[in-house]
Amino acid sequence: MSEFPPVPLTLEGSSVLHQFFRFDWKALRAVNSLDERKEITEEFTKVFAGFEKAADGKSQSAIFSQLGHKGDLIFIHFRDSLEALNQVELTLAQTRLHDFLVPTHSYVSVVELGLYESTRKTYEAAAAKGLTQHSPEWNAEIAASLERGAAAMTPRLFPSVPDAKYLCFYPMDRKRDEQKNWYMVPFTDRQRMMHDHGMIGRRYAEQVRQIITGSIGMDDWEWGVTLFAEDPVVFKKLIYEMRFDEVSAEYALFGQFFIGLRLQLDKVSGWLEGKL
Amino acid sequence: MSEFPPVPLTLEGSSVLHQFFRFDWKALRAVNSLDERKEITEEFTKVFAGFEKAADGKSQSAIFSQLGHKGDLIFIHFRDSLEALNQVELTLAQTRLHDFLVPTHSYVSVVELGLYESTRKTYEAAAAKGLTQHSPEWNAEIAASLERGAAAMTPRLFPSVPDAKYLCFYPMDRKRDEQKNWYMVPFTDRQRMMHDHGMIGRRYAEQVRQIITGSIGMDDWEWGVTLFAEDPVVFKKLIYEMRFDEVSAEYALFGQFFIGLRLQLDKVSGWLEGKL
Amino acid sequence: MSEFPPVPLTLEGSSVLHQFFRFDWKALRAVNSLDERKEITEEFTKVFAGFEKAADGKSQSAIFSQLGHKGDLIFIHFRDSLEALNQVELTLAQTRLHDFLVPTHSYVSVVELGLYESTRKTYEAAAAKGLTQHSPEWNAEIAASLERGAAAMTPRLFPSVPDAKYLCFYPMDRKRDEQKNWYMVPFTDRQRMMHDHGMIGRRYAEQVRQIITGSIGMDDWEWGVTLFAEDPVVFKKLIYEMRFDEVSAEYALFGQFFIGLRLQLDKVSGWLEGKL
Amino acid sequence: MSEFPPVPLTLEGSSVLHQFFRFDWKALRAVNSLDERKEITEEFTKVFAGFEKAADGKSQSAIFSQLGHKGDLIFIHFRDSLEALNQVELTLAQTRLHDFLVPTHSYVSVVELGLYESTRKTYEAAAAKGLTQHSPEWNAEIAASLERGAAAMTPRLFPSVPDAKYLCFYPMDRKRDEQKNWYMVPFTDRQRMMHDHGMIGRRYAEQVRQIITGSIGMDDWEWGVTLFAEDPVVFKKLIYEMRFDEVSAEYALFGQFFIGLRLQLDKVSGWLEGKL
Amino acid sequence: MSEFPPVPLTLEGSSVLHQFFRFDWKALRAVNSLDERKEITEEFTKVFAGFEKAADGKSQSAIFSQLGHKGDLIFIHFRDSLEALNQVELTLAQTRLHDFLVPTHSYVSVVELGLYESTRKTYEAAAAKGLTQHSPEWNAEIAASLERGAAAMTPRLFPSVPDAKYLCFYPMDRKRDEQKNWYMVPFTDRQRMMHDHGMIGRRYAEQVRQIITGSIGMDDWEWGVTLFAEDPVVFKKLIYEMRFDEVSAEYALFGQFFIGLRLQLDKVSGWLEGKL
Repeated sequence: MSEFPPVPLTLEGSSVLHQFFRFDWKALRAVNSLDERKEITEEFTKVFAGFEKAADGKSQSAIFSQLGHKGDLIFIHFRDSLEALNQVELTLAQTRLHDFLVPTHSYVSVVELGLYESTRKTYEAAAAKGLTQHSPEWNAEIAASLERGAAAMTPRLFPSVPDAKYLCFYPMDRKRDEQKNWYMVPFTDRQRMMHDHGMIGRRYAEQVRQIITGSIGMDDWEWGVTLFAEDPVVFKKLIYEMRFDEVSAEYALFGQFFIGLRLQLDKVSGWLEGKL
Repeated sequence: MSEFPPVPLTLEGSSVLHQFFRFDWKALRAVNSLDERKEITEEFTKVFAGFEKAADGKSQSAIFSQLGHKGDLIFIHFRDSLEALNQVELTLAQTRLHDFLVPTHSYVSVVELGLYESTRKTYEAAAAKGLTQHSPEWNAEIAASLERGAAAMTPRLFPSVPDAKYLCFYPMDRKRDEQKNWYMVPFTDRQRMMHDHGMIGRRYAEQVRQIITGSIGMDDWEWGVTLFAEDPVVFKKLIYEMRFDEVSAEYALFGQFFIGLRLQLDKVSGWLEGKL
Repeated sequence: MSEFPPVPLTLEGSSVLHQFFRFDWKALRAVNSLDERKEITEEFTKVFAGFEKAADGKSQSAIFSQLGHKGDLIFIHFRDSLEALNQVELTLAQTRLHDFLVPTHSYVSVVELGLYESTRKTYEAAAAKGLTQHSPEWNAEIAASLERGAAAMTPRLFPSVPDAKYLCFYPMDRKRDEQKNWYMVPFTDRQRMMHDHGMIGRRYAEQVRQIITGSIGMDDWEWGVTLFAEDPVVFKKLIYEMRFDEVSAEYALFGQFFIGLRLQLDKVSGWLEGKL
Repeated sequence: MSEFPPVPLTLEGSSVLHQFFRFDWKALRAVNSLDERKEITEEFTKVFAGFEKAADGKSQSAIFSQLGHKGDLIFIHFRDSLEALNQVELTLAQTRLHDFLVPTHSYVSVVELGLYESTRKTYEAAAAKGLTQHSPEWNAEIAASLERGAAAMTPRLFPSVPDAKYLCFYPMDRKRDEQKNWYMVPFTDRQRMMHDHGMIGRRYAEQVRQIITGSIGMDDWEWGVTLFAEDPVVFKKLIYEMRFDEVSAEYALFGQFFIGLRLQLDKVSGWLEGKL
Repeated sequence: MSEFPPVPLTLEGSSVLHQFFRFDWKALRAVNSLDERKEITEEFTKVFAGFEKAADGKSQSAIFSQLGHKGDLIFIHFRDSLEALNQVELTLAQTRLHDFLVPTHSYVSVVELGLYESTRKTYEAAAAKGLTQHSPEWNAEIAASLERGAAAMTPRLFPSVPDAKYLCFYPMDRKRDEQKNWYMVPFTDRQRMMHDHGMIGRRYAEQVRQIITGSIGMDDWEWGVTLFAEDPVVFKKLIYEMRFDEVSAEYALFGQFFIGLRLQLDKVSGWLEGKL
């Protein structure tokens, strides 16, 4: 048995749901009564306002106007459990506006902090104490370390929706190809590559806010990446630069990319009339 | 000819159907009469209650509220034959609620216990007796061994639906790539890898209940994995840890992932009004 | 030029069409009049009875109730030409029941006997006579051999629909990967692998009836495999065992799997009321 | 710089559009008036007759009754430009019959003659004259050669729709894999493989008429292959034999296969009543 | 650390949206009133005229009549931001004509000039000055160089829609395979290959106008290629020739291809009556 397990420790925070909808403009046009339209909008606005200012303080929801045929509206929701997210879906489904929303995509995940650096220290400390891997003592050591980490990182584990103009979302996997297989790479090599990768992100820290969510067992890819920026060209610059980085160049597998513009709740009624 | 055949013995139990549906909220909203809604719900509830308490004692059905756009409701059914499962489908199709269910996915399989360890013993015992492979005597020896196994494992072959809050389902294959080809790996190597893999699962035994179903010849993947847990983050931890294990890292091919929350039958009428 | 051409000879028999439909239960529920329902059923039954007892004696059609969301009904038709199969499609399309059938899949192929063993003998005999490949004399020699084969194998070339409870269908290709390329493997190696493969099938002969159809130039895969058995678990056992066999392990590429239960024509009206 | 460019010269002829439609039988059944049906058929027949006998003499259109769920009708159109093909689409879209046609697939391409053999001669002649590649003189030499070729091959560049019972269509690419990459193979090796490939086709020349169309920059595959024969089993025999040929075995990538029966225009009204 | 970063510098110009729609001819046929049709057309024409002659001088929109089943109409829009493009989508969605447009595809990107040659010079100059990579001084040096480039290239960064008869669009990636991985190729090799690639394009410069747009982080592929020419066969010749070029042969991955004919705004009302 090697010095420590191959799996890096992770911390989990908010449960997150990304919803993507095409808007049925034809059906809305068929609603002739202005009063009826107003009722539809007001009901939705009231419901969504509740999402934005949930009682627990940690819950967050936001709306984006999406570009391209993959959808017209993106909703993102941060909650304290998948159960709470499912309730969000059911609550939205009861609004009349929902009749005009055709679901095109979604993503279920939880905020995740991958801890390559501290995992190594934690595993080494446990090994130094002579603890047997997966023994109750070893488990307790690891759990205590994670707890300390979670306490220190609460704001990153339960983030607010950044107040930026543009959003970019894409899911990704680590490759498990015949020769390039991330899950067969030694821990320390993975740690080094993740470190180098992080250095690029750090150079963009002032221009891009990034939220990484883990989705193994919850959705079809391993991770979701949600980026926020004032200038969408920065998304391109950042991801292009990262693509030359070893961990992305050799081991990243990307899904579809989704892009949208923040739509404040009080602008929704304007949006329904075609005004961004 | 090698000492014993390359194929591990398996035991089969319940036939299983996973059904995934999107719910047509718009159509339900068009049903204005409260009485009509009530009739629809009561008819469905009565039918499904029959599914849950079938006369044979082994039949089981359960409902889950699904997250994301892949569907809104998951039904899982355990029966004693594919024929009985087909009857379940036909019976559901006659309910009025079925008009609001848009099928998005399904999975047809049977509970399977893969017996790498005991297969080896059985094959070795038959070889020790000097029996020719696939001769009537050899066949009888194998059949007797399987029968003893089936008797001992009845509860695992005909499982109840575990009483947990969350469900995770995904199908999987073993890879048959040019260099990494599970079906060309010697039996004993496969046996060793499966053993190591099982050790990880065992560490999660208290947190996750797992039902493996085989679907070769029945559906598009080789196996289905259905997990049950109180905390969905445990699904992520378990599958992530397994992904570094040799058999998964090198030989596993995963399909889509589906996740839902148990919905007790008496909560269905609430769910139809948007309450989880 | 090698001793003989790389392509094995084949014999072709019945033209075969597999049709897969989802049934529109909602639309049927909208047909309130019992008389109308009866008319719909009787018209269909009469038409399909004609399919089952066609004048030429060789034509065969059968209905299966399908499991899962991929469809609800499977029709298979054996005819003496693709033209006759196209007429079947057009005739079905004129029935009122067809309004409730949503096509989800199909497969167009012809019964094919691949003759690796006898091809070798035929090619060797022609070479022994000193005939030049593809010369008129060589062609005549091959054609005569095929004619003798066709006469001897008529029942297998124009099979009846086996009278079994379950059907399993899947299409498949031989791989043409960079290193594992069936079409670059020497004839004698392919012959040996096909022989070994056949040995497995033979052990299941009493439990499974198999019809191989060729579809190169007719549909998206190279072959279709249609299996018939009383117990669907036998499909799984057979295909799993074959998957460890060299020709399948290294060179088989599988499409989707479809499974159904035989539905006798006099049970169709019951099926439309939800009774299997 | 090598002796001559790697790209083989090509000659282009007719622009070709393949259209595939599913027929909405349910909607046609809803047209109760026989007069209305007759009007629909007559309008379509008149329009399509114009397509078949276009003023320029080179234009050709034909109808096929398709097998399987991929569609019910195939139209193929040969014209002198993509513009003329687009006008065909628009003209068809104005007919009332078009309301019953659900587009399922299409293919846009131009008749292409790949000139591996003569390209070599042309390039060698230009090199022998000491012309610099891509210089005005070299370009003129090549252009003159192509012009002579086009004049000689007019009937093959502007073909008539062969008068055969069955049609088979499939698109294809040349592989660009890591090791097997057609576009990295030296010209002379490609020339040799294409020559061998052509020899197989020649043996089938009496049974199969073949039209190769190029679609790089026009549709999703590099080439379309349209075959015509009296017996559809010949498609299978030809393509199966070719699949063992080096250029297909190693470098061909195939798309979907479509198959249909020629439907003469005066049989369309019968077809609409279910008679082939 | 190597002499300079692996990522080439890029300049970005107009934001671009490609929209692809199928036209619902059946629904239009249901609009019986000629006045109503006229109103629909006039409203659309007025809105689109505003797109074509936007106040800022840089905005451009154009319409193309598409070939094949992938769509009937293509709109392309050049704007100064993604926000402006999203407003275009919303404005179009308010027109009555939009009810007849079924979105089938789209592409979101920005005009991009990849600067392999000047990047090398810029990086070398910065290195010669002894500047540390990514230091404020180094960043300033790079930014100044980019600014000079942008000023010189304004017409290419904010292009007009070329006045050609045909359009061809396709997205593409650079391969990241196990052995052929563009993002692991040394900068100077990539620079050389891009240079050779450009030489082919230059030979076609009089026949084809090309606009390259970058879409990393904005859409599912890395780049979009939009070509304009009077003769669509030139698209085929150009792309075929490029396919033998090292960078395309080994490293290009292509998406779908879309082709259409320019449709001037004053021809739209004719097009709606089936006249190109």
